[in-house]
Amino acid sequence: MKLEKLVGDRFKERPADCVIDSHALMMRGGYIKHVANGIYSSYTIMHRIARKIEEIIRQEMDAIDGQEVLFPVVMPASLLEESGRYESIGKELLRFTDRNDSPMLLGMTHEEAAVQLVREYGNTYAKYPFMIYQIQTKFRDEARPRGGLIRVREFTMKDAYSYHTSQEDLETYYAKAHSAYERIYARVGVPEVVSFASDPGMMGGKIAHEFMLLTPIGEDSLVICRDCDYRANMETAACIIKNDSPTSPEELKKVHTPGTKTIEDVCKFLKLPLEQSCKAVIYQKAKTGEYVIIFIRGDLEVNEAKLGNILQEELHPAVVTPESGLNAGYLGPVGLKNAVAYFDTSLKGLNNLCCGANEENYHYTGLQIERDFGAAEYHDFAKAIENGICPDCGKSSLSLSRGIEVGNIFQLGDKYTKSMDMKYTDDSGALHHPLMGCYGIGVGRLAAAVCEAHHDDYGPIWPMSIAPWQVHLCCVRANDPEAKAWADKLYSELQAGGTEVIYDDRPVSAGVMFSDADLLGVPIRVIVSPRNMKENVCEVVTRTKSVSEKVEIAQVAAFVQKLKTEMLNS
Amino acid sequence: MKLEKLVGDRFKERPADCVIDSHALMMRGGYIKHVANGIYSSYTIMHRIARKIEEIIRQEMDAIDGQEVLFPVVMPASLLEESGRYESIGKELLRFTDRNDSPMLLGMTHEEAAVQLVREYGNTYAKYPFMIYQIQTKFRDEARPRGGLIRVREFTMKDAYSYHTSQEDLETYYAKAHSAYERIYARVGVPEVVSFASDPGMMGGKIAHEFMLLTPIGEDSLVICRDCDYRANMETAACIIKNDSPTSPEELKKVHTPGTKTIEDVCKFLKLPLEQSCKAVIYQKAKTGEYVIIFIRGDLEVNEAKLGNILQEELHPAVVTPESGLNAGYLGPVGLKNAVAYFDTSLKGLNNLCCGANEENYHYTGLQIERDFGAAEYHDFAKAIENGICPDCGKSSLSLSRGIEVGNIFQLGDKYTKSMDMKYTDDSGALHHPLMGCYGIGVGRLAAAVCEAHHDDYGPIWPMSIAPWQVHLCCVRANDPEAKAWADKLYSELQAGGTEVIYDDRPVSAGVMFSDADLLGVPIRVIVSPRNMKENVCEVVTRTKSVSEKVEIAQVAAFVQKLKTEMLNS
Repeated sequence: MKLEKLVGDRFKERPADCVIDSHALMMRGGYIKHVANGIYSSYTIMHRIARKIEEIIRQEMDAIDGQEVLFPVVMPASLLEESGRYESIGKELLRFTDRNDSPMLLGMTHEEAAVQLVREYGNTYAKYPFMIYQIQTKFRDEARPRGGLIRVREFTMKDAYSYHTSQEDLETYYAKAHSAYERIYARVGVPEVVSFASDPGMMGGKIAHEFMLLTPIGEDSLVICRDCDYRANMETAACIIKNDSPTSPEELKKVHTPGTKTIEDVCKFLKLPLEQSCKAVIYQKAKTGEYVIIFIRGDLEVNEAKLGNILQEELHPAVVTPESGLNAGYLGPVGLKNAVAYFDTSLKGLNNLCCGANEENYHYTGLQIERDFGAAEYHDFAKAIENGICPDCGKSSLSLSRGIEVGNIFQLGDKYTKSMDMKYTDDSGALHHPLMGCYGIGVGRLAAAVCEAHHDDYGPIWPMSIAPWQVHLCCVRANDPEAKAWADKLYSELQAGGTEVIYDDRPVSAGVMFSDADLLGVPIRVIVSPRNMKENVCEVVTRTKSVSEKVEIAQVAAFVQKLKTEMLNS
Repeated sequence: MKLEKLVGDRFKERPADCVIDSHALMMRGGYIKHVANGIYSSYTIMHRIARKIEEIIRQEMDAIDGQEVLFPVVMPASLLEESGRYESIGKELLRFTDRNDSPMLLGMTHEEAAVQLVREYGNTYAKYPFMIYQIQTKFRDEARPRGGLIRVREFTMKDAYSYHTSQEDLETYYAKAHSAYERIYARVGVPEVVSFASDPGMMGGKIAHEFMLLTPIGEDSLVICRDCDYRANMETAACIIKNDSPTSPEELKKVHTPGTKTIEDVCKFLKLPLEQSCKAVIYQKAKTGEYVIIFIRGDLEVNEAKLGNILQEELHPAVVTPESGLNAGYLGPVGLKNAVAYFDTSLKGLNNLCCGANEENYHYTGLQIERDFGAAEYHDFAKAIENGICPDCGKSSLSLSRGIEVGNIFQLGDKYTKSMDMKYTDDSGALHHPLMGCYGIGVGRLAAAVCEAHHDDYGPIWPMSIAPWQVHLCCVRANDPEAKAWADKLYSELQAGGTEVIYDDRPVSAGVMFSDADLLGVPIRVIVSPRNMKENVCEVVTRTKSVSEKVEIAQVAAFVQKLKTEMLNS
């Protein structure tokens, strides 16, 4: 199509509210329009990219025997009451009533609808395994939408659901889906995406993986071993601490440490390294308000995801009131009252620690936990650290990264089939609940992630496979009849050859033309100009600058076609 | 794909709750699954049909320079407050609040989002005309969903919005869109769909058309002239009555008509034709409760859509209380109190009418309105009638039909651009509000309408263009190795040739196989069987039975390919 006709404005200035580059470039290039917090409309250019990503996902889902279906956006509350999630999911599930006061909700994931669709169909083992998927609008009422299409409230998502009669079959299919996901990321231009074991959270089940694009702007903290294949989301990563053999134990001694409320202040005051301190981190149980104190080595942080999983309790950072009987800033294990204490494994085997004395302006030195506190319950509560010990290879080679989650897969087991009473008869006539897997990819976020991975200061650099157009044809000085006639002819030729062309024949300067082309990020640019015409050539330049050639006019269409094919297959 | 693997159940019995055939067949064939009132999931078979319809619509929208975009399903209330529709639309607009108590709604049509998307872009006349469209999920909280996919609450719709700088340009584009719609209906297999002038209703604007598939199960009443091109929706159709020259006037005379509360009873009692009676129909103004009586010839009905438009007042059928001072059942123009009276043009020039005497058990005969009531206000309030007078050609050739609305187009004018303050600068620097058109088609309803138009007792008969698959390959007695090997080979050959094949090689009887095939409604059926193998042939049968041939095995793939192409182009 002609660029002149393309609906959407482009501009130079980075909008002040755009923190990340993909958001800024999508605003500047006329890709998306803000409608409400976390809700966007897509202009044609964005919609073309999204449809190409959807088609790649569709092909890969079909290749692993997926059948595309469509679930509703609006569902009755009763459907999620069957699984118990109507109660258990928080405010991100948008609930409302319809004109008849029936409670309804907006689908943010469709496990229940997926079970409802096949509950009768899947009544005998002979039908298994099978997989259904949809590409559909979802709504998740996020508290803090951010980063343009990275974290929105309304989004298009592919969600797939597989059904199995054995754990082995589920695992086999899960591995196939994992490979399909790897092919999807490779095909959309981010083969560097890697998977991490993750916490299934509200989805249920035990085994889950997240696919991550590593980037400093990512929301997720990731732990990766430089020496082996170990990879984990910070939420689930183990923290292994090997303390040196202890020094000879000293006596427990109360010392006056005026005004030293943080562990850093105390250690500085006492001239001790942080590693020789026992830090207290206070939580409260959400249900009862009871205080829970985690003691941990002063240089480490508590991993709250692991904490919740280990204690099987919902906890939040404590509000310490005067009535609590707790001396915030001076909490320590010795003489502790009004709270339950747990210890991180980082403190195991240490002695001569400093810690709070449960008395304002006083700490202890010389702490040895078993001697001075008694029998302690130790768990791995700590966040993994840079250069920490890898749980797989044992080397001190852990590295911390950030990543954008661009897909996740879950082995759900029988969580939904059991609660929603889906059953099949096996070959002996016995009834069982099938096992399920589920597999999600957000389309818009994936597009934004590709943009994060592939852009420069001037615009996105779209891979050929998902680019809004394949060729950007610029006719510089379209008021020159010869150049215009030739550009028109090339436009027709390229389109006739099945190439998607955006054609800029506006009467604007080459500067405006090229900066607009940069914002569109189309992989191949062809420049027709009176100056080139004199040499009987066109310039063919890729957005990455990997190719920049003057090609004889008669050869341009064939050259571009070949280049396009190479770039599609690379 | 293999039919064995197709998710969804098929069954023989017509479900008791299915009133219309398309609903029954879509349930019986495993096309859709009921999730909640007016909300369905689609199985693969339905989704394939929907995607083909969408692709046809997309091509035709692109052909009239449409640019595909995507608006949100969930929108902030503030957007519809700008146009005033947040207040003016009734309960079918689903309103709710998000986690921050912000008022939101589910999009049932996207005029406001369409203006918001291009309000800045369309700031100069040089950008016009342009058209944007989307294919997106909509939600309309219908009071009475019915007929499977015919009237649902959640549905996929293509909605398009065009922008113009003059009424002339809008009309030119409107005509182009009208033609595109005709091509869409022809391509999906219902070229018989025709357009009717309609009432724009809550959409605003003056000119609108509905596209109708004529069918007895339709919800809409339509008026069509048998002799000329006149077509109108009953809501807007004129009712022209030419009364015979009046008989010599009699005196107004009160008669005792005990227990005759309806006009039929009175006429029977008085031995008068209904055409010689003046019937009273009572309404109340929604705002004030004031009574409005429409007097109309006894054989005619009031058209409430015309009534509201003519009086520019929201009215509802009256609740007549004892305090009203009205004598329900005996209302007439003479001596009428406590109500405003209007007269239908059908009464004009008549004399010797019977009418209520505003007194229980009494009527008048000999009524002549001007003589006995005074100056009367006449309007065309009546519903058009079978064999009524055509307003275009004047012949008594009107015919009443029913139809399913399968699309509508509107000239919106500046209703939305004015209320939402979208402006462009013309070539002299003056500011104007652009004019808009909008163009909608529901995908699921169109599929259901095609099914209504093309089915038999055994299943749908899908046109090749939107059929879920193009060829249904049946291997009867798949336990015969030769037949099976040959069917497998044909399956591969057809697929390699780009044909979409559903392959049934289940170990079931030919009866089960063929009744399943009937429910799938695939246009070409190829039957491989041991008996056919002996003759070295396959049977090739179309779902319509227009073709039924034995084709030599070696020729089958080529024969089917040719037949498919013919059917696609027919």
